[in-house]
Amino acid sequence: MNPVRNPYKKILYVAYVATSIDGRIAQNNHSGTDWTSKEDWNFFQQSLKKIDAVIVGHATFKVAESRLRRRNAIVITSKVHRPKTEARTVFFNPRTSNLKNFLRKKHYKTVAILGGSQIYDYCLRHNMLDEFYVTVEPYVFTAGVPMFQGGKFKKYKFSLVLVKKLNKSGTLLLKYKYGN
Amino acid sequence: MNPVRNPYKKILYVAYVATSIDGRIAQNNHSGTDWTSKEDWNFFQQSLKKIDAVIVGHATFKVAESRLRRRNAIVITSKVHRPKTEARTVFFNPRTSNLKNFLRKKHYKTVAILGGSQIYDYCLRHNMLDEFYVTVEPYVFTAGVPMFQGGKFKKYKFSLVLVKKLNKSGTLLLKYKYGN
Repeated sequence: MNPVRNPYKKILYVAYVATSIDGRIAQNNHSGTDWTSKEDWNFFQQSLKKIDAVIVGHATFKVAESRLRRRNAIVITSKVHRPKTEARTVFFNPRTSNLKNFLRKKHYKTVAILGGSQIYDYCLRHNMLDEFYVTVEPYVFTAGVPMFQGGKFKKYKFSLVLVKKLNKSGTLLLKYKYGN
Repeated sequence: MNPVRNPYKKILYVAYVATSIDGRIAQNNHSGTDWTSKEDWNFFQQSLKKIDAVIVGHATFKVAESRLRRRNAIVITSKVHRPKTEARTVFFNPRTSNLKNFLRKKHYKTVAILGGSQIYDYCLRHNMLDEFYVTVEPYVFTAGVPMFQGGKFKKYKFSLVLVKKLNKSGTLLLKYKYGN
């Protein structure tokens, strides 16, 4: 509103997740997602073309490091004190540095949140999750890593804006916006 | 196949669950679901008219006891050794009695699985989950009871057969069938 106090436009934070029907996103923190569909992969890769940077947790970074090194990637970690830059990758500790300020100073307009559970939770709690793409693959896992790993039960309200079947085997893409 | 060895028709097991986007079905094992929509409630009540009996866990039974006492309800519990009948309610320990045989002898055709997490898991593992209605309410909880509580990660494949928006606020009803 006030160009002197806030010279930066609001960043759009868009989270992407692929999940089982029962809300599990991986077998464990080090496993990849061999169960996601080709159609979801294509959607995801197309989507990433429109974003300026991605935020991931350290375990997620490790699972897909070579691909993520080719993007502007902010890797959330408690292992650095100050931001540590390696080419396009920045290792960042939001407890010791201001993440939102950092992203604004980079003049990013759209930032993608790619997980894992604790990163989705962190971003939701810190008002950094405006849009949420959820790909529901037609599996039940009964165990594994939950989509969000928060300490505290809270009702965050979303609005459903899109429902799309991605293929015949029953992969469903949902788009939500945060809020009413 | 052989009418002498199996005089009973296969029972249709239909599970119903209301979930948050992140796969949580309750705040804790003793809480109800005050966050589900009127439209889901109506769908659920209409659906129950077509079923012969319900299977619930003991905690779920306690949360909705007065309503469940009016149905043929099998309450799964480790606290009885033999089935214990109280009017239309049967307390049943599947470790000491054969649940499928019990249901067949009752000549039930359609049995609804109403949760909680451990009961959904038990039924899925024991081939007692043929159809699965999932109502996704537009919330993220970040914590709480997961939809399935299984000890072991496993890929159970489902097929999506129906997607229906139940209201304008974004409640989504999904119907899956077990298998390809």
